[in-house]
Amino acid sequence: MPSLIELVRKCDCFPYDDDDQHIPKSKLIPFTLFGRKIGLLFPDVVEKLKEYNNRFIVKPFDISEKSVTFGKEINTLDERNAVIKQLFDTWREEDAFVHLRGWRDELYPVYGDPSNTNNVAFIIERAASNLFGISTFGVHLNAYTRMSDGKLKMWIGKRASSKPSWPGWLDNAVAGGITHTQSVKETLIKEAMEEASLPSHIAEKAQSVGAIAYFYATRTELQPETQYIYDLELPVDVVPKPNDDEVECFYLWDLNELEQHLRNGEFKPNCGLVVIDFLIRHGVITPDNEPDYLELFSGLHRRLGYPGPSKVTK
Amino acid sequence: MPSLIELVRKCDCFPYDDDDQHIPKSKLIPFTLFGRKIGLLFPDVVEKLKEYNNRFIVKPFDISEKSVTFGKEINTLDERNAVIKQLFDTWREEDAFVHLRGWRDELYPVYGDPSNTNNVAFIIERAASNLFGISTFGVHLNAYTRMSDGKLKMWIGKRASSKPSWPGWLDNAVAGGITHTQSVKETLIKEAMEEASLPSHIAEKAQSVGAIAYFYATRTELQPETQYIYDLELPVDVVPKPNDDEVECFYLWDLNELEQHLRNGEFKPNCGLVVIDFLIRHGVITPDNEPDYLELFSGLHRRLGYPGPSKVTK
Repeated sequence: MPSLIELVRKCDCFPYDDDDQHIPKSKLIPFTLFGRKIGLLFPDVVEKLKEYNNRFIVKPFDISEKSVTFGKEINTLDERNAVIKQLFDTWREEDAFVHLRGWRDELYPVYGDPSNTNNVAFIIERAASNLFGISTFGVHLNAYTRMSDGKLKMWIGKRASSKPSWPGWLDNAVAGGITHTQSVKETLIKEAMEEASLPSHIAEKAQSVGAIAYFYATRTELQPETQYIYDLELPVDVVPKPNDDEVECFYLWDLNELEQHLRNGEFKPNCGLVVIDFLIRHGVITPDNEPDYLELFSGLHRRLGYPGPSKVTK
Repeated sequence: MPSLIELVRKCDCFPYDDDDQHIPKSKLIPFTLFGRKIGLLFPDVVEKLKEYNNRFIVKPFDISEKSVTFGKEINTLDERNAVIKQLFDTWREEDAFVHLRGWRDELYPVYGDPSNTNNVAFIIERAASNLFGISTFGVHLNAYTRMSDGKLKMWIGKRASSKPSWPGWLDNAVAGGITHTQSVKETLIKEAMEEASLPSHIAEKAQSVGAIAYFYATRTELQPETQYIYDLELPVDVVPKPNDDEVECFYLWDLNELEQHLRNGEFKPNCGLVVIDFLIRHGVITPDNEPDYLELFSGLHRRLGYPGPSKVTK
């Protein structure tokens, strides 16, 4: 049975030290905008990008030894979007990277231009985001019910066996990516209906309680992620129900059962991290019963150093 | 009025980048034990340590360009305690460092030897801990009352004007350093009586909800700190009262008042961070109303990379 810190390391697996053998951290090249890192590139991606860049007289990218950024002529949201779309359409057609075969037709916002609404710098196809080390943002909901004895039971979704990623694994009650047109809370309310049939007058009572951040990486993927977290106490007579074919069913577990399924490694890894954060905030995992308490903490809240959405509504 | 992220940076002010001008991060030398960093030394401290070391035939310390550790003959808790005591007694007598004039006769545990109970490697005088960049650990309590309308009001202490550090500043209801003989919860229960007259049958209901970690530093001090955090809902008829001369009085504020005093910069800085964490966990500070939400998060949960207490009770 994996320890909790091992579960955290499954998500937060990008090395902290330069001399890690698995991923050559010191050889990665930042993709920058206005002098800030907004992406991170493997050396082979930079090589392919140089080769692509050489096809143009007006260069789409400015590539040096230390960083990659957009070319001098590429200065607006629309211009960046056009450059990025053309690049990945070309690379997809040329089958330049295996990852692009998993094209999703789903656009992720990349942040870092304060002159645009919500700090958006450009948008990028989801399947391409790992290749460029783009930081992505989501929202997860812990939905629970307080039983007549005062104890909490948590609603946990089981992912449909037909889902392309992590089929059949356990999930939080509601989760979804942040689009660049909605606030975090609006995204949550929309997803609560789509994924768990929770009406907006219930979902809007969800309370913002924090966020987790981790850096997932393999030899070919760089995926820093932030998940905003909300808690929602459901009235006893409100029951989440699958509303699309993405969720198979919902379970209602007391916190001991929940911890057992977590420690068994049955959760989609990042959803397990949301559960760990919940169990820490609700006094189940404590410094007196968890030897890796402080390491859990820093692994759940990695400093990614990327710009993020800025959706302040007032 | 300072922003919340400015309040966090007052505590978490050790540079993240090597090229910071204020503190020469890349020139600092780790103090290690069993290959792990358990302290951090300014170059002038290392120089003085070399000079001290040269007075002995059996060297108390092993000093290289890259790290400082105990000498080969110094292998047990008692031996390390004797070496550290002799060093700082000597330096205090010789007035080697201004900081040692603030001698407290209070011993802090330094962690990093798993063969000892609770992972303690040695103990060190509090006034010397900054000089050696020792990581220290405390526990803070948010004590609040739920009013008849369901809203929370927080109990906030005002530090006595006679306190040597931060006199007259605002503080959490209860706070104290972790000793190496008690669990985190035991420490909290003891401090709750000493500082706020809260009896143990009340204090033991406090719930572990997380921790904050930050690295405070000046040109002469290196002070990485971790504070474990507990929340305690007090019955309406239970009122914290000062029990010694360290607290002047307690205030009871609703969360809006609390946030106002926080933003006014009236809190002892690290106690303000505990309040920020509380306001995040209780849905007052959210990603939709706080532009620096994610930066707050990483600043409150810095990865310090030091060994910590290991007090697992089961």
